[in-house]
Amino acid sequence: MKKIKMLKCISCGKEHSEDEVKYVCNSCGGNLEVIYDYNLIKKRFSYDELKENRYYDIWRYLDLLPVEDIKGIPPLKVGYTPLYKNKKLADKLDVSDLYIKDDTRNPSASFKDRASAVVIKRVIETLDEDKRIIATASTGNAASSLSCLSASVGIKNIIFVPEKAPREKVTQLLIFGANVIMVKGTYDDAFDLCVKACEKFGWYNRNTAYNPYTREGKKTAAFEICEQLEWEVPDKIFVPVGDGNIISGIWKGFLEFKKIGFIDKLPKLVAVQSGNSNSVYKAFTEKLQTPPVVSGETMCDSISVKSPRDGLSAVISLNESGGFAVNISDDEVILSMKEFASSTGIFAEPSAVAVYAGLKKAISQKLVGRGDSVLLLITGSGLKDIESAKKSISKAYRIEPDINELEKILVSINLKG
Amino acid sequence: MKKIKMLKCISCGKEHSEDEVKYVCNSCGGNLEVIYDYNLIKKRFSYDELKENRYYDIWRYLDLLPVEDIKGIPPLKVGYTPLYKNKKLADKLDVSDLYIKDDTRNPSASFKDRASAVVIKRVIETLDEDKRIIATASTGNAASSLSCLSASVGIKNIIFVPEKAPREKVTQLLIFGANVIMVKGTYDDAFDLCVKACEKFGWYNRNTAYNPYTREGKKTAAFEICEQLEWEVPDKIFVPVGDGNIISGIWKGFLEFKKIGFIDKLPKLVAVQSGNSNSVYKAFTEKLQTPPVVSGETMCDSISVKSPRDGLSAVISLNESGGFAVNISDDEVILSMKEFASSTGIFAEPSAVAVYAGLKKAISQKLVGRGDSVLLLITGSGLKDIESAKKSISKAYRIEPDINELEKILVSINLKG
Repeated sequence: MKKIKMLKCISCGKEHSEDEVKYVCNSCGGNLEVIYDYNLIKKRFSYDELKENRYYDIWRYLDLLPVEDIKGIPPLKVGYTPLYKNKKLADKLDVSDLYIKDDTRNPSASFKDRASAVVIKRVIETLDEDKRIIATASTGNAASSLSCLSASVGIKNIIFVPEKAPREKVTQLLIFGANVIMVKGTYDDAFDLCVKACEKFGWYNRNTAYNPYTREGKKTAAFEICEQLEWEVPDKIFVPVGDGNIISGIWKGFLEFKKIGFIDKLPKLVAVQSGNSNSVYKAFTEKLQTPPVVSGETMCDSISVKSPRDGLSAVISLNESGGFAVNISDDEVILSMKEFASSTGIFAEPSAVAVYAGLKKAISQKLVGRGDSVLLLITGSGLKDIESAKKSISKAYRIEPDINELEKILVSINLKG
Repeated sequence: MKKIKMLKCISCGKEHSEDEVKYVCNSCGGNLEVIYDYNLIKKRFSYDELKENRYYDIWRYLDLLPVEDIKGIPPLKVGYTPLYKNKKLADKLDVSDLYIKDDTRNPSASFKDRASAVVIKRVIETLDEDKRIIATASTGNAASSLSCLSASVGIKNIIFVPEKAPREKVTQLLIFGANVIMVKGTYDDAFDLCVKACEKFGWYNRNTAYNPYTREGKKTAAFEICEQLEWEVPDKIFVPVGDGNIISGIWKGFLEFKKIGFIDKLPKLVAVQSGNSNSVYKAFTEKLQTPPVVSGETMCDSISVKSPRDGLSAVISLNESGGFAVNISDDEVILSMKEFASSTGIFAEPSAVAVYAGLKKAISQKLVGRGDSVLLLITGSGLKDIESAKKSISKAYRIEPDINELEKILVSINLKG
């Protein structure tokens, strides 16, 4: 593909052509990054073109995506999710502006649709119809996203999820017709098994970060933030971090828009990690060379990882952007779930609420101040994990259909302010 | 409001001014319909204006909505949901074109957000801040929608749901901060209690159909269908019918766009009802004067109603449009759930899948033929009722993270075609 210059290894720097490697560096096994010919792109892609473009989805950034055209893309609308400014929360938290990017509004109700859509389109472009079997390991969302978008174009899936994946996500997988393998183990076990199986059976592997094109889909969120805020990038962007692929994707997006001259300023990125799934946090704050293996234990299933597959890129993104990392507890997430939903109308899953809890923590640690404009990236819907949400809420009242019974309980309901 | 001419009773035809009545006809208790000054609107609202308008939500139709302006509207994006053309399903079912309007993509993941948004904006325009307490009875979606959008603007809710409402919907309510009263009884019991409570305690009542402005929000889906299909209206539109307020809203929308000259052709509407919740079906097919009281029993919770509150309007819509009604069983819905999700990538709740089951039935009864273009209105997300979805799916495989164990089960997985 002419616009792609090479695939460059993030670990050892080795450069590969697109047909030379399939997923990772053939020399050190590191993850690869897609490098475009930005001079070429600069010539043919302009803001005026964006201004005229009425198709509000990820494909409006085709010039910067690793696919040829939009023929045969999954038909479901992915991306260009709403971006809201919330004055009430900004005032409450005492920051200058608070923005929320609501990626629960994607087809499978998660951010992961951005990556799945790009990977599926690559598969359609590069593999014959009888070879199109896509596999992935996932904590849940990447899988339900892959199955959702694959269903829309009729491609078969093999999905590996840890046995603890929420039942909503597993139900989504099955109803979309995926072949679901629940692995008695962690996400990391599922990941390794998926890699082996793809090698052995010749399936195409969508594994996050291992497949270099996942990051390409994820970067579109950064493009949208630039456009939606009319090229005024916020000071700090809070991103939930498990594998580290979202935050490195977002960073790549901002860097690319800067390279082609669409923006001048870059935001600082903030990695939010939860519980003992805090490898990137540790590597960043302790200045370690390699993100360490941690227990991975957290209720935030989407960011529950022992060994982050794009941890190194995540740490690089934090350093390059001048950002930082925050580590929050599951209890802080539970406390924030209802607070966030009831002040925004956005019902987010634990891993997504983590960024709100992370912002509050960063404010308390004076890492965010009243002059700052802040954006929270909300990556998944709370409908995908009802059990967790229930930890945050009180009970409903249960009465006979009788006005006197109702009146009795009204005394305990606060209807003012 | 100058653009509104009157509120006209659907039962006895009596005309009221807006300040004369609050909800229903003061003479016969019938539901009211908002009648606009269409000549005035015709002068100031044009397609060219729509073409230029880049705000893709329900408020783009402000001239035909019962509110003054867009100041203080709920900030969450409601409406302008995706409309897809599905060639594969059209070929499989042997109809000329099959369109899907995906209203699972609204903020609370249901069609009801259209009505809630309009009602909330009315409340903001017409009630002082200290009087803004909104109540509703609901099978689930209208409630979670009201709470979601109310949370986004900080208005208190009292919600009455039948005790059988799915736990996902109840969780949504509580996380959005609503005061939830689970009524030991049916939706109809909850409805009556809500009416009494609003009278007694002075709360604003959003009850579907009883509040004439709910229909005003719902009609926006018809406007969008016209625009998204570039003013080529499909022959038949399948709508899930419980209370009858969605179908009469849709019908009003098409009629209004015809009145102001935006379209020439009107679609035929098809009411899909499920199980023994088939009052409109009975009234229409047996040509009864009044929709009868039925048991209301169905797994399709969103259309489970004993006595449809807008049943008369629903029957009028069927007659005026030259459409018809279909009655399907819960088993037919279960059979259709996975089939629909796995061929579209859209995970719909039982009441929404009902329209797909209804289309298949109508085809088998030769009520729809191969020359027909058909649209399915998908009104709610399957994530809102996981228990029902589980009835439609097979189980996942569960294995140790071991490639040999995987190989053993592969023999039973069909990976071809």
